[in-house]
Amino acid sequence: MNKPSLLVIKVGGNVIDHPEVLQHFLEDFAQLPHPKILVHGGGKIATRIGQQLEIQPNYIDGRRITDDATIDLVTMVYGGLLNKQITAQLQALQCNAIGLSGADGNLMPAVKRPVKEVDFGWVGDVLADQLNVALLQSLLAQDIVPVLAPLTHDGNGHMLNTNADTIASAIAIALSEMYSVKLLYCFEKKGILKSMEDENEIVTHINRSVYEQLLSDGTLTDGIIPKIHNALAAVDKGLHAVCIGHTNDLHANAGTNPAGTLITT
Amino acid sequence: MNKPSLLVIKVGGNVIDHPEVLQHFLEDFAQLPHPKILVHGGGKIATRIGQQLEIQPNYIDGRRITDDATIDLVTMVYGGLLNKQITAQLQALQCNAIGLSGADGNLMPAVKRPVKEVDFGWVGDVLADQLNVALLQSLLAQDIVPVLAPLTHDGNGHMLNTNADTIASAIAIALSEMYSVKLLYCFEKKGILKSMEDENEIVTHINRSVYEQLLSDGTLTDGIIPKIHNALAAVDKGLHAVCIGHTNDLHANAGTNPAGTLITT
Repeated sequence: MNKPSLLVIKVGGNVIDHPEVLQHFLEDFAQLPHPKILVHGGGKIATRIGQQLEIQPNYIDGRRITDDATIDLVTMVYGGLLNKQITAQLQALQCNAIGLSGADGNLMPAVKRPVKEVDFGWVGDVLADQLNVALLQSLLAQDIVPVLAPLTHDGNGHMLNTNADTIASAIAIALSEMYSVKLLYCFEKKGILKSMEDENEIVTHINRSVYEQLLSDGTLTDGIIPKIHNALAAVDKGLHAVCIGHTNDLHANAGTNPAGTLITT
Repeated sequence: MNKPSLLVIKVGGNVIDHPEVLQHFLEDFAQLPHPKILVHGGGKIATRIGQQLEIQPNYIDGRRITDDATIDLVTMVYGGLLNKQITAQLQALQCNAIGLSGADGNLMPAVKRPVKEVDFGWVGDVLADQLNVALLQSLLAQDIVPVLAPLTHDGNGHMLNTNADTIASAIAIALSEMYSVKLLYCFEKKGILKSMEDENEIVTHINRSVYEQLLSDGTLTDGIIPKIHNALAAVDKGLHAVCIGHTNDLHANAGTNPAGTLITT
């Protein structure tokens, strides 16, 4: 039995921070075939509004702590301003978007990250096996397009800050029982670069053996290793494919001849 | 054929501004029978955050104008902070709430209020005959509880500020074809007072002839007249009843022996 296709697309702060780039991206996104889900990150606007509100960023070991003031800030900015603006812009493009956080319809329950050496504050680790898949299916069946903010909740009345890459991956995996899911990570490069010196030469295809090879020959930079590691874990769990590519190549990367780096089992 | 019952409940800033009062109200709300919808107003927190962000309130003839900075502010605060906090709190009470603005699923399309003497800015008049009733029905059928922020959208990519009383009434009317709808306005008084001097003596029942009588004998104060006028218009359009009463009397007012003022045809 062939499963229907589903696109799960993650877009980050680098797009959200630039209104014209975001508008262009949303125009492309609106034209993609149904069913589809958009997961968005945060961007610098939360930092800017936080500065105006005199919320002091709180770091331990270089990692931002989500204290009481910060979770309210990101709930406002990610769950309100960004999520509703993106939704309204998609509506204007005849794309019937619905903006949701993890609390909405108990879509993404999470646990507050356990305190080990560091207490990260109101940060949530998604309970991947408790996602409300039925709600997403019901919305997709009505040709509605879920637009997910990087926010989860703890079931005890608190919102939690959660990485958008992780949300995109968890949602894509959870839906891969019912759909043939392609997960696209959109960023500002064409794909995984063969060398830092050349922006145009990318690795077109990565599977586990290629990954081991790239790791051993030093092609992969520190920042990209966890992304590929997670992508391989996702395809191992049943995703059709993951594609990492440029925001401008959305249509190609959603299709059968991706311009970015394709990651499969 | 008997229609199923539905409660549409509006709660305002006077409750939202006080965390303990809000928590108590949400506990009562969570216990009410399905299906039900909550519509919430704003409260002073938007003003407070606006002051911190140095957004100068802009008034014409004593009425607040929703300028560019203000629509972003209320989108953040009403659509993000308040809507998601209320949703997360209801989730903690085992009430499967979903927080939505009017842009989400094209739930509440609106038109920017036409400029006559005054340009109110980004204020929306709900397009009452274009509400996405099918989406609400689908959510209610899944035992999900819509929690609506006082925000609509113009279909051209802009969020709009809309009065929560108006939203509650428009939603209640639109759903009264399928449901026997009772609309409850929760505020800080027991109901419509017989006299300003006595907080305990209320008018128990108002219909059009009682309304004319109350108008002519001067019982009704200026502030309450439009509320009752709108309530009568709503019951004329097919609502089962409107009840105006105290937040603490939610269960009584949702039941067959309301403690507040009942308004029927």
